[in-house]
Amino acid sequence: MVTAEEKELLAERLVSGNLYKLKHLSAMVQPEELAELINDSKEIDLRKIFQVLDAEKAIKTFENLDYDKQMELLGSYTVEQLSATLNQISPDDRTALFEKLPEDTLQRYLTLLTDEERKTTKELLLYPEDSIGRLMTPDFISVKEDWTVQQVLDYIRKNGRDSETISNIYVTDSKGFLIDDIKVRDFLLAPIDKKVSDLMDRQFVNLNARDDQEVAIDIFKQTNRMALPVTDFNGLLIGIITIDDVVDVIEEEDTEDIQKFGGTEALDEPYLKIALPQMIRKRAGWLVVLFFGEMLTASAMGFFNDELNKAVVLTLFVPLIISSGGNSGSQAATLIIRAMALGEVTWLNWWQVIRREVLSGLALGSILAVIGFLRISIWSTFTDIYGPHWFLIGLTVSFTLIGVVLWGTLAGSMIPMLLKKLGKDPAVSSAPFIATLVDVTGLILYFSLAYLILKGTLL
Amino acid sequence: MVTAEEKELLAERLVSGNLYKLKHLSAMVQPEELAELINDSKEIDLRKIFQVLDAEKAIKTFENLDYDKQMELLGSYTVEQLSATLNQISPDDRTALFEKLPEDTLQRYLTLLTDEERKTTKELLLYPEDSIGRLMTPDFISVKEDWTVQQVLDYIRKNGRDSETISNIYVTDSKGFLIDDIKVRDFLLAPIDKKVSDLMDRQFVNLNARDDQEVAIDIFKQTNRMALPVTDFNGLLIGIITIDDVVDVIEEEDTEDIQKFGGTEALDEPYLKIALPQMIRKRAGWLVVLFFGEMLTASAMGFFNDELNKAVVLTLFVPLIISSGGNSGSQAATLIIRAMALGEVTWLNWWQVIRREVLSGLALGSILAVIGFLRISIWSTFTDIYGPHWFLIGLTVSFTLIGVVLWGTLAGSMIPMLLKKLGKDPAVSSAPFIATLVDVTGLILYFSLAYLILKGTLL
Repeated sequence: MVTAEEKELLAERLVSGNLYKLKHLSAMVQPEELAELINDSKEIDLRKIFQVLDAEKAIKTFENLDYDKQMELLGSYTVEQLSATLNQISPDDRTALFEKLPEDTLQRYLTLLTDEERKTTKELLLYPEDSIGRLMTPDFISVKEDWTVQQVLDYIRKNGRDSETISNIYVTDSKGFLIDDIKVRDFLLAPIDKKVSDLMDRQFVNLNARDDQEVAIDIFKQTNRMALPVTDFNGLLIGIITIDDVVDVIEEEDTEDIQKFGGTEALDEPYLKIALPQMIRKRAGWLVVLFFGEMLTASAMGFFNDELNKAVVLTLFVPLIISSGGNSGSQAATLIIRAMALGEVTWLNWWQVIRREVLSGLALGSILAVIGFLRISIWSTFTDIYGPHWFLIGLTVSFTLIGVVLWGTLAGSMIPMLLKKLGKDPAVSSAPFIATLVDVTGLILYFSLAYLILKGTLL
Repeated sequence: MVTAEEKELLAERLVSGNLYKLKHLSAMVQPEELAELINDSKEIDLRKIFQVLDAEKAIKTFENLDYDKQMELLGSYTVEQLSATLNQISPDDRTALFEKLPEDTLQRYLTLLTDEERKTTKELLLYPEDSIGRLMTPDFISVKEDWTVQQVLDYIRKNGRDSETISNIYVTDSKGFLIDDIKVRDFLLAPIDKKVSDLMDRQFVNLNARDDQEVAIDIFKQTNRMALPVTDFNGLLIGIITIDDVVDVIEEEDTEDIQKFGGTEALDEPYLKIALPQMIRKRAGWLVVLFFGEMLTASAMGFFNDELNKAVVLTLFVPLIISSGGNSGSQAATLIIRAMALGEVTWLNWWQVIRREVLSGLALGSILAVIGFLRISIWSTFTDIYGPHWFLIGLTVSFTLIGVVLWGTLAGSMIPMLLKKLGKDPAVSSAPFIATLVDVTGLILYFSLAYLILKGTLL
């Protein structure tokens, strides 16, 4: 077992480039861990490290490197080394690398592949971005229904080495159409003279290569499988997807959702690795849009300029009111967006959601209204900052709070649902977006209520 | 294969309780899918459905039911049925059920278990909540190093039926200490007369039962394994965890993070299922705390009451300024919290983060400052709403925007890092929390700058 200290030592060796020690230590870690260490290190001589690794470990380590480390290493290779590496990595990892390449590099790399690998790669790259086809590997084990368990085990022993996983064995008919999906477990537990057909129940779940990767996530979650077969739309078995690839996709999608929800474009790269100008650009876009939206608050307040001049005391509560609307809207939007991402809420539940949010909004708004009114009355017994009409001002603030919180919860819950219904990404209706919307309308509500309640006294 | 129509038909049968059709259709779906359908249905007769399922399918389906459906079914059982079900479900699913039970039910259910199962269950429940021990199952296959591949395969055929997964085979010494972790794949691909010791490399990754489940998530991501062995702190092999359990945990943790970040307590239940009063309580807590924080804005503005009365025009830009600070803070907090959750950023990177955020804050603030200044100058050529001192007002607003956006990005990035360093959950520093903090300080900055720039003219 590798201890934390040994890992640290290995990380040091990676940087210092002490080859003898490196060879010794790197033999002790799994390729995935080695790749993790390399990904986290800066200024290391990648070529040196890969020279001391044996061929199989080098390939497995390469498959787990980040894109820029992969490109750095490939850039240092001779054409022969480059060609060997590109041909040996597994098809799904190759697709992940190739789909990021600039066009000219892509064409050059394709010429370095053997005819067979090039054909596979081109086929996989033809599937739409974010489709299941881009995640799958065509290396799987398929058997026929008239084989015996012993025949299957012998076949696996001879041909299984290239398969991405042998946790599931697929049964196809003579034309290659998928007819069953059997766990290798069943073959290991069954008497060896049984026939494949004895183990079959013809119940299987398959993915369609052209479907979105989100479909794969949902089905993996529902079925608790380690691997799922992928077919074309005719039912021809063309590949498999393993759950570890899906875990990575889940994480990427959650990251995108979270970042969008925070009011920024998805970075698509780790925080510390993305170039600063690019990060600023991704953040500036939404910030400027929101700023333009928020400028409407200045217009709204300008519209009530006369009232403002007569009752400056009203402005004291402006930040309190608009932020309460924004906060309640942010809560509602978060809950609904996540619930939709998890499939707990769909458009069909709109009426249930409205009912819940109206009741929540009224309850939450009333709580804040009571606290706000208490604050104004208590302050008014000690100071006269709020003037002689503090009671009416308190009423205005309280009613506005109820209205603005109600409006926040409704906008926060309904806008994401509408966006989803319209085929847009609901996570775009970020907390800042909802807050900005509620700010403008909240101000209008506040000054309108003030006009109604304070007319003849303060106004 | 089950089509969408057949699934819908099955869902209908579940509700209508047509037993004959139900038996026929339920034979066609996997237990996980059946459970999914039941979880999504209301008002179905659970007992009827489980009567038509064969024993193994019933248990597997039960394991995948939601807690309230599980309790509903168990409540309808006789003591014998109850005891049979509780004894047959797999230990990790039993832990998941038992840890939610009220104390008296827990004690009653424990008495219904066989001595052996009770011992196992009690041991698993002793592990801290959210620890790896709560996720593990003690059903695994361990072999000795002097066995041959054939012996291992025979052993699996005889004893593998109860194991949660046989994707990995564990090698233990005579005392039960873990000495290697070998993929079943290696046994399937190796010549059958080889010895286990020939396949061993003594390299394995193990989890500690007392570690937090987040550790398991990280290690599963790093190692791309389907199952990992769990040991006690001495290295004794006591269980395994499979990746499908970890996928569920990842999703739960992301949901908690997202909800907290939206300024609400984690619901811990699906949006449409949680009782309304409970949801309101979970949302009201933070909303009230934030409201109290935001009341400081009224105090801050009250403090500048004299200036406000002299220059009411300044109030027009209050919402614009505080929301810009809040939005930039929300962006920074989102990016940092997610980067920390993914392990991309740790406390050790604080200096890098500060440098990036200072530069981002200055750049973003300057962009908004320019837009804000343009707005004020353009409006001033057409109206005189901003008065004769519009130029100085424009300067005040612009400088404040730079300061408030810079402060927003710094607070938004540093507060989550500090919380993490202090051992708190960084997701608590939600978008609304950062916004509230920036609101109060932003107002103080605005009126202080106004005092400096406008003294002698407007003030």
